[in-house]
Amino acid sequence: MSNQANVIIPPMRLSELGEFGLINLIRAASTRYQNPGRTPWRDLLLGIGDDAAAWQSGDRIQLVTTDTLVQGVHFDLGVISWEELGWKALAVNLSDIAAMGGTPKYALLSLALPAQLKVKNISDFINSITHMAAEFEVAIVGGNVATAPNIVITVTIIGCSKGKTMLERSTASPGEQIAVTGYMGLSAAGLQMLTGKTVSDPDARNILRQAHFKPVPRVKEGQILVEQGVRTAIDISDGLVADLDHVCESSKVNARINMEQVPVHPVVTTHFPNHQELALCGGEDYELLFTADKATVARAKQALSCPVTVIGDITKEELPTRVLVVDSRGTIIPYKKGGWDHFKNGVSHVRFTQP
Amino acid sequence: MSNQANVIIPPMRLSELGEFGLINLIRAASTRYQNPGRTPWRDLLLGIGDDAAAWQSGDRIQLVTTDTLVQGVHFDLGVISWEELGWKALAVNLSDIAAMGGTPKYALLSLALPAQLKVKNISDFINSITHMAAEFEVAIVGGNVATAPNIVITVTIIGCSKGKTMLERSTASPGEQIAVTGYMGLSAAGLQMLTGKTVSDPDARNILRQAHFKPVPRVKEGQILVEQGVRTAIDISDGLVADLDHVCESSKVNARINMEQVPVHPVVTTHFPNHQELALCGGEDYELLFTADKATVARAKQALSCPVTVIGDITKEELPTRVLVVDSRGTIIPYKKGGWDHFKNGVSHVRFTQP
Repeated sequence: MSNQANVIIPPMRLSELGEFGLINLIRAASTRYQNPGRTPWRDLLLGIGDDAAAWQSGDRIQLVTTDTLVQGVHFDLGVISWEELGWKALAVNLSDIAAMGGTPKYALLSLALPAQLKVKNISDFINSITHMAAEFEVAIVGGNVATAPNIVITVTIIGCSKGKTMLERSTASPGEQIAVTGYMGLSAAGLQMLTGKTVSDPDARNILRQAHFKPVPRVKEGQILVEQGVRTAIDISDGLVADLDHVCESSKVNARINMEQVPVHPVVTTHFPNHQELALCGGEDYELLFTADKATVARAKQALSCPVTVIGDITKEELPTRVLVVDSRGTIIPYKKGGWDHFKNGVSHVRFTQP
Repeated sequence: MSNQANVIIPPMRLSELGEFGLINLIRAASTRYQNPGRTPWRDLLLGIGDDAAAWQSGDRIQLVTTDTLVQGVHFDLGVISWEELGWKALAVNLSDIAAMGGTPKYALLSLALPAQLKVKNISDFINSITHMAAEFEVAIVGGNVATAPNIVITVTIIGCSKGKTMLERSTASPGEQIAVTGYMGLSAAGLQMLTGKTVSDPDARNILRQAHFKPVPRVKEGQILVEQGVRTAIDISDGLVADLDHVCESSKVNARINMEQVPVHPVVTTHFPNHQELALCGGEDYELLFTADKATVARAKQALSCPVTVIGDITKEELPTRVLVVDSRGTIIPYKKGGWDHFKNGVSHVRFTQP
C-alpha cells in the first residue's frame, strides 16, 4: 500500500516511535486513567516531565527520581572501572535531585547481573556506590537483585525539598538571565578521549576522565539556588542546548545564548578543535543551568563557591530556533540538534521525567 | 594450591556467592559507611531486609519497594501476554506494600527495551499497567526508558502507612497463631500448567492462569490487618515455607504448621498429584501470611472478606527445622527447602528487601 493520499501509517516498532514517542504514550495512558480530584493525584505537583517527580506530603515536598544504566548502551566495561561505574550510577540520580534544589535521602539499588560476574568487580562497584551515598548523606535502604544476560543498573532516589519551594523547568520568564555552574563540554571531551582521541598531557587526561566518569552532582548548589530565590533549573545531562531547550519548551519561552560567554574549560579549548560543539551539545556534564532576574543571579553567584557564568537571556521574541546561539556580533552559530533518541539512535541517556 | 588446612577460598563468581551473599555484601557495605545518629539514618525504621523500606516522615511512615522482572528469567513472552505482563509487574510491587499494611501512592516505571519491539505490544503493556495503577489509586509519576538487548522492567512504589504502625517480619511471638489469606500453591500449579502439564477443564485452566499471571495484591487486606491490631506479616512470594522461614529468622522464633490445615484450592488438589509440595513451596501466590494472638486473628478473620485460615503456631520450642510441617497425628512432613537463588539457580524472584 502506498503512503499517498494522507494515509497515516502508525509506527510499528519502538525504533520508529522513538524514545519521546514512548514517553508520550506512557504519559497519555497514565493521564487517561487518573482521577485528579483524589489522592494521590491531588497532591501531585510534578509528574512525568521534570528531573524528578514531586508531591506535597504534609509540610514538605517529596521528590523521587530514577535512572538506569545499561551495559553496552550507557557504559563499556572495557573503559570504565567498576569503582567509576558505582560513582556514576549514583551521580546521575543525585544530579536530578540537585536540579530540583532538593535534599536526597534514601536510595534503592536494583541490579540485573550475569551470574558469571566476578565477586571482586561487583564488590568494587558496591563499595564505591555505598561510600558515595554516605558522603552525600543518602541511605541505601533496599532494592532488588536478579540474574540477567546483560548488566542493567537502576538507582532510585527519594528526597525532599527543604521548604515548600523547589526548582522546576516550567517557570522561566522573559527577561531572565540564563546561568550555568562549572564548565560545558568537559564530559563529552572526556568521552572522545576515552574512545580514541589522543590527549598526551596526563593532567588533562585525568581531568577529562574524572569529568566523564565521576561527575560531582551539584546537590548543595541546587539547595543554595532555592535559598537565593531561584525557581527555574535543570541539570545538564543531554547537552547545554538540548537541556535549555527542555526549559524553553516547558516554560513556553525562547532563549538566546552568547557562545563567547559559554564557559569552556582550558583543557577542552586546548586539546579539542571541536570545543564549541562539545560545549553546546556534549551532554553528561551534570552541571546546573538556571534562570532568574539579574539581581537573583548575582546573589546566587555570590552564595555559590563554584564558577557561575551568565550565558544569555530568556525572551519572548520570535527567534529562528527556540534556542538561538550567537556570537558577540550577533552572528548566528549553527549547532546540531542535540539529544539522542534511545530507540532511534540507540545511545545516550535520557529519562522520561524529561519531556 | 590445595584447599586443605583451613585455607578459605572466597567465592570468585556471583554464581558461587549467590543471591543472598550479594545482598549481605550490599547490606554490609551500606552499614559500614552509615552515620546512625544523623538523618536520614536516624529516621530509618526498616532498611534492607523486609518487604519494603520504611522511615518516619513527620506524622507518618513512608514506604518504598522495588522489583524487577527480567525477560527469560521472570517471564517468557511465548507464554505471558503483554497485558498480563503489565498487571504482574505492578502486582508484585503492590504486594510488598500490602505486606507492610500500607497505602501505595506513587509509582515509577523503568523500562529497558529492545528497539525492535512492536509498538502494539508495548502499548498493551502500558495500558494494562496504567489501568491497574489507577484501580489501586496509584499515580505513575516518572521513570526511565532506555534501549537494551533484553527486556528489564523495574517498578518502584512509594506508599505510606495510615498511622504510625505497620506490618513487619521481625515481630512474631511464641504462642501466636499463623494465618494465611486465600489459597496456597495456585500460582505454582498455574506455572506447571503453562509449562506443559495438561489440565483439560477450561474453568480450571482459567483459574490457574489468572493465579499465575494476574495475582490480586492484598492491599486492602493488609490495611485491615493493621487496623485489627496485627503487627507481623509477609507476602507469599517465595513459597509458604520459605516466607514463613523469613518471618521466623527475623523474629528469632520457630513455627509449626499443620499440613491438613493449609488451604489448597480444589483445582489444585484435583489436577495436581504434587499439590502438597505446590502448596508448601510453590511461591508467587502473593497472599498474606500473618501472625497474631488468637483473639486478634479471629477479629481479623471477621473483618476480612477473603478466606483466612489458621495453619499453625509460632513457638520458642526447639524443632528439627525452623519451620516444621506436620500432619494431625504429628508426623513430620518433609519438604524441599524452597526459595530459588538468582545466581546459583538462575530462576525466580527474590528481592534484597528480603534477608
